Amino acid sequence: GEVFEKAGVNVSVVFGLLSEEAARQMRSRGKSLKAKDGKLPFCAMGVSSVIHPKNPHVPTMHFNYRYFEIEEADGTKQWWFGGGTDLTPTYLNEEDAVHFHKTLKEACDKHDVKLYPKYKEWCDDYFYIKHRGERRGIGGIFFDDVDSPSKEEVFQFVKSCAKAVVPCYIPIVKRHCHDSFTPEEKLWQQLRRGRYVEFNLVYDRGTKFGLLTPGSRTESILMSLPLTARWEYMHTPPASSKEAEILEVLRNPKDWVH
Amino acid sequence: GEVFEKAGVNVSVVFGLLSEEAARQMRSRGKSLKAKDGKLPFCAMGVSSVIHPKNPHVPTMHFNYRYFEIEEADGTKQWWFGGGTDLTPTYLNEEDAVHFHKTLKEACDKHDVKLYPKYKEWCDDYFYIKHRGERRGIGGIFFDDVDSPSKEEVFQFVKSCAKAVVPCYIPIVKRHCHDSFTPEEKLWQQLRRGRYVEFNLVYDRGTKFGLLTPGSRTESILMSLPLTARWEYMHTPPASSKEAEILEVLRNPKDWVH
Repeated sequence: GEVFEKAGVNVSVVFGLLSEEAARQMRSRGKSLKAKDGKLPFCAMGVSSVIHPKNPHVPTMHFNYRYFEIEEADGTKQWWFGGGTDLTPTYLNEEDAVHFHKTLKEACDKHDVKLYPKYKEWCDDYFYIKHRGERRGIGGIFFDDVDSPSKEEVFQFVKSCAKAVVPCYIPIVKRHCHDSFTPEEKLWQQLRRGRYVEFNLVYDRGTKFGLLTPGSRTESILMSLPLTARWEYMHTPPASSKEAEILEVLRNPKDWVH
Repeated sequence: GEVFEKAGVNVSVVFGLLSEEAARQMRSRGKSLKAKDGKLPFCAMGVSSVIHPKNPHVPTMHFNYRYFEIEEADGTKQWWFGGGTDLTPTYLNEEDAVHFHKTLKEACDKHDVKLYPKYKEWCDDYFYIKHRGERRGIGGIFFDDVDSPSKEEVFQFVKSCAKAVVPCYIPIVKRHCHDSFTPEEKLWQQLRRGRYVEFNLVYDRGTKFGLLTPGSRTESILMSLPLTARWEYMHTPPASSKEAEILEVLRNPKDWVH
């Protein structure tokens, strides 16, 4: 309540029969699934969280780690993991950005040094707000459909990522939660929150999938939205302002660890 | 500035070649169009406006009237009009609702008494926020793809609708713009604004069409969003409160003119 304006943790376990619509979405992502009478039993579980702090010098953080399993007509099971952790600052702090990405890289490198660069790029691609030409934040890692080398190895990797959430984010919160800020900085935070809403409602696959699923819990799905947001017509920060600085890295993602 | 928190008027005239994607959308709405080398020259023009007042006792109003023309491979032109006017109150005022709908009905009745009931229902259907089980507001009129009885007659009808905008809305603004309100009422307004954002970003065809069109002006498209909005987890107003009263009519649209 003192530091965070809105924070939610969502643990979900769902199972049932996958709809034709949802199955088609899976297929378009490279999975070929043979249904029995058009029905695909599935089971999914995941944990996700979004933290929107009050102080504009403390970034918003989001993570989600999930496991998905589908049973095909012949009884074989397809499974995969997905997830990621990403940071959305109102103002750029290079030291924080480097700390965040380095911590995620270390978690990935223990498993395979090829993972961080791949999932960092995937994150920049995923959180792209096309109509703005901006990413939602300064990224992190994102992956989906991961089913190799083995279930156990992928699970160990996902556990490492999940364990990295606290060390990559909490030091940043502690460093800035007592920073003073101006009304102008709070206003810029609210405009950035507007972009967060735009991404989540227009592009986020999880949100869209959830809202289209009959019987899903709207309040859980939209828990990720900030408490408040703002839209101003044609708001453009002056060149070389702190506001323009963050926009620059949202438009052109940086490599934070080399 | 004194009465309205955010208000915009958008006049647009666009022409060019319709993309395959956009053409498919048209087709799905019942138009069969024969393209020449996959290209469909089109021209569209429209005027739209959204007014979000400061005072929670003054409702938000939106209208849009537009004309669309497409040239087929053989040179024949398809054309149609679309549009509507609708009201989104934070609190229900029956007298205002009746005035708003009656004024629209009178404008429609001059042309054909079948129009108001048909377009009132279309409006309730169109502004449905499926994941909430609520309409965005208390409706009004909405129509699209109207190309009969004749271009001149439809144009006269659309002009009557457009002329009704001021008399259906401005008396309501005048009646309530000096009403006193509490911080709780302002908060409820902000939560309702959140729903407005949800509808526009998740469902509104115009917004989605615009954001997907390369080269379109994002700021014009998102002009319809309120200045500020709010999301609270699991907010539920107490039964038989003023807040529950408006929710009831958003869930079960009423007939305001009989």
